[in-house]
Amino acid sequence: MTAGGANGAGAVDASLASDPLARLSINQATLKQWSLPELAMGCAESGIRAVALWRGPVQAYGVERAAALMRDSGLAVTSLCRGGFFTAADPARRAAALDDNRSAIDEAAALGTGTLVLVSGGLPEGDRHIGAARERVADAIAELAPYAAERDVRLAIEPLHPMYASDRCVVSTLGQALDIAERFPAEQVGVVVDTYHIWWDDLAPAQIVRAGVGGRIACFQLADWVTPLPEGVLLGRGQLGDGCVDLRGFREQVDAAGYRGAVEVEIFNPALWARDGREVLAEIAGRYLRHAA
Amino acid sequence: MTAGGANGAGAVDASLASDPLARLSINQATLKQWSLPELAMGCAESGIRAVALWRGPVQAYGVERAAALMRDSGLAVTSLCRGGFFTAADPARRAAALDDNRSAIDEAAALGTGTLVLVSGGLPEGDRHIGAARERVADAIAELAPYAAERDVRLAIEPLHPMYASDRCVVSTLGQALDIAERFPAEQVGVVVDTYHIWWDDLAPAQIVRAGVGGRIACFQLADWVTPLPEGVLLGRGQLGDGCVDLRGFREQVDAAGYRGAVEVEIFNPALWARDGREVLAEIAGRYLRHAA
Repeated sequence: MTAGGANGAGAVDASLASDPLARLSINQATLKQWSLPELAMGCAESGIRAVALWRGPVQAYGVERAAALMRDSGLAVTSLCRGGFFTAADPARRAAALDDNRSAIDEAAALGTGTLVLVSGGLPEGDRHIGAARERVADAIAELAPYAAERDVRLAIEPLHPMYASDRCVVSTLGQALDIAERFPAEQVGVVVDTYHIWWDDLAPAQIVRAGVGGRIACFQLADWVTPLPEGVLLGRGQLGDGCVDLRGFREQVDAAGYRGAVEVEIFNPALWARDGREVLAEIAGRYLRHAA
Repeated sequence: MTAGGANGAGAVDASLASDPLARLSINQATLKQWSLPELAMGCAESGIRAVALWRGPVQAYGVERAAALMRDSGLAVTSLCRGGFFTAADPARRAAALDDNRSAIDEAAALGTGTLVLVSGGLPEGDRHIGAARERVADAIAELAPYAAERDVRLAIEPLHPMYASDRCVVSTLGQALDIAERFPAEQVGVVVDTYHIWWDDLAPAQIVRAGVGGRIACFQLADWVTPLPEGVLLGRGQLGDGCVDLRGFREQVDAAGYRGAVEVEIFNPALWARDGREVLAEIAGRYLRHAA
């Protein structure tokens, strides 16, 4: 990683540039029906060379064991999801959240990924001060960033769609994420560009340029926007090409901004989880080539 | 209305300044269980002097008859909901939408309100170009604004929460709404500030100032944000004080920006609709005084 930060630190092997799937990374949450060994085997068989993992299933399988499995399967781990949820004002809860994030950083380091995705957390019960909660996000990152940097892990602030602002993530736009990230060295704190969360924002294109200039694009994720949204609005992401997001347009924007890392597909969708994993993976690869690559 | 526009053209009678409910306006959608005569009687009995109406129930009751009912009940009509839905690219659909909006303007004029709220519409099926859809909104307003001005009706662009961007309203932020409104004279086109839609936006305070300086705040609406969101995310608005929005803070911001108009309460919530209307109205008045006035 350069001193000035980088766009896509977990960069793709240049020797694979002629492979159209070289940049594709499958986020584990997209194929929830699969165990880690099934994911590793499925990706390897499909010519996919990278995955993004989640803490829960990695912990259940064993962190070192998961790291070995991915290594032995020839799979890069492009990011670990997720740290964050550090908006508590209560000191004990805040300390617990910071401890948990240090564990997440350790796990990312053990998995060999340079990127820990941060979902910052929502408003505490009864709290009406979202600005103050955002400041607590910055405070938490100030405590965690040096610890992460010592372990070669970059914190990646993910803005989530504003519909999650109260209960999941008070950081709602790429502009807000960069306002926080830019208080820290670029090699320590970056941002996530996820099409699902920012597609509606007319300011996003300029913020992608800002992120690229600063070497802040740590991770790029694809999902499509479809309606109607389900109750709770968490599991309504669309398969690539099923919705209204100009996926290729965003991929071209991050590339133009200097991003050279993986393109992660992260779709939370029970309809995909109910199907045969191999069939879903083949469909994703096809959709990726058609709509984004 | 002044040539330079105004903040809250349907302004509140100054002689009522000592009445704490003087600015409160009840949006009809908040009390869907009531017929228009029930709404008129309930408000009059509760010391509430203003309502905001919806086209559907007004048309069903008869526009002139509804106007007479409100007049005879001593109720001001602070806005009519809603025009808009003019993002179609297809020429025939577009022409039909413009015709329908001219009818909405006529109805607003007949009701004696100076404000027609515009919900701009979502993306046409299969469309991935939200920027172009926003331009079609501006084009439609260019056609409609002179027609509305001739009838003393101001068009009020309402930014809806980004979760509605694809299927209901491509205008998602106050900044976007002002970008369009400012292409037209302030007395012809203003914006709606609705706490439910913009509470999460760190740029909203500055945009409220911008709107106030330009005399663009045509309407101010209150609803609280609560989770979990229901399927379809349309009917999940919270009673004032039940959620995480700093309602008083927003009311103070619009006031500081020069707004002198009504404070409309617009809550789509089946739990409120299932209750006795008088009880709900009394609760809203109490919550308004406690959390916003």
